[in-house]
Amino acid sequence: MKNNKISNAVIRRLPRYRRYLLELKRQNVEKISSKDLSELIGYTASQIRQDLNNFGGFGQQGYGYNIELLYNEINGILGLDKEYNMILIGAGNLGHAVTKYIKNYGEKFNLRAIFEVNEDLIGKKLEGITIRDDRDELEDYIKKENIEIAIICSNRESAQDVADKLCAAGIKGIWNFALADLVVPETVAVENVHLSDSLFALSYHMNDGKRA
Amino acid sequence: MKNNKISNAVIRRLPRYRRYLLELKRQNVEKISSKDLSELIGYTASQIRQDLNNFGGFGQQGYGYNIELLYNEINGILGLDKEYNMILIGAGNLGHAVTKYIKNYGEKFNLRAIFEVNEDLIGKKLEGITIRDDRDELEDYIKKENIEIAIICSNRESAQDVADKLCAAGIKGIWNFALADLVVPETVAVENVHLSDSLFALSYHMNDGKRA
Repeated sequence: MKNNKISNAVIRRLPRYRRYLLELKRQNVEKISSKDLSELIGYTASQIRQDLNNFGGFGQQGYGYNIELLYNEINGILGLDKEYNMILIGAGNLGHAVTKYIKNYGEKFNLRAIFEVNEDLIGKKLEGITIRDDRDELEDYIKKENIEIAIICSNRESAQDVADKLCAAGIKGIWNFALADLVVPETVAVENVHLSDSLFALSYHMNDGKRA
Repeated sequence: MKNNKISNAVIRRLPRYRRYLLELKRQNVEKISSKDLSELIGYTASQIRQDLNNFGGFGQQGYGYNIELLYNEINGILGLDKEYNMILIGAGNLGHAVTKYIKNYGEKFNLRAIFEVNEDLIGKKLEGITIRDDRDELEDYIKKENIEIAIICSNRESAQDVADKLCAAGIKGIWNFALADLVVPETVAVENVHLSDSLFALSYHMNDGKRA
């Protein structure tokens, strides 16, 4: 990450702001005070002011926040004012689940192709998207089709090799579902989704840390 | 959460320790120094000592950590020394994707039934699991079948109603994939998986916070 000014905690909170602002926009609400926004989102008013000040602060004393404006700003900050072309690597069960998700909820994230090394799967389709040959087409495809994001759904053992290939081909972001901690150049962004980690945190909390 | 002694940050790191320890166990490694563990996992040695001290500390001066012992302890702390019965609510695309994931990677988390209100889906199967009627069977099923965890894959609008029903039926944990922030009694644990939030964090980092 080149820009470290804004803490990761703030960035993690932005999608939540965006979600509530989108909802308010849909209800044709024009403005909101930081107090009301606080009650809605569940962060303190001072937390909200602090968070939004990171980006120059869009509130006006005695007026509150203009919802349309704030939404657009947060959208822009998150890089959601443009579309993204994606590919997915690994057409197994996990890849299929993620494909299903992206096809239905991907918004501006367009899944263009799926790559796989298993010859039994190459040439078939997953949710209408053709499965291509990982070894032959991957690099060319990324370059020609202006692919910015790759979703890694490979197994843990091959995930780093896949990441190396993707980085060499000029990928800008990796959404990693493989249970591996990837090493990539500084210029490439990585977001890990380790679903089982989340499930394990749930079972911890259910058991209330009894052992601790 | 009743027990607040251990910070959420530590709990989030435990699954990662578990993952690496499992790998070492598989390679028949018996012990490891905190320095070597540090190089492997990517946390500092002092971070590791601090984290593990939260649970009584399992290292011995001049010996390091016994892998089997540490793995078992972390497993126990995370509540992974037992099995869990789960149900899933919402048999749409998201529910199907999560079902696919759990059936293949759920380890000790057993998905026993799927519930849905859409009559076109009730009675059909998803990955071999029968889709049941949400309105008629949900509460009874949870009680009779000793269901501890519910996965919510409903739409945003109905997620809170679903959560209320689940809590009334005595559910202990909710793995929430719906884009809603649920309000539940203190005794019920909730883990949210907002996949799009993770994708938005990725696009933020790819764009390097240019607007900020």
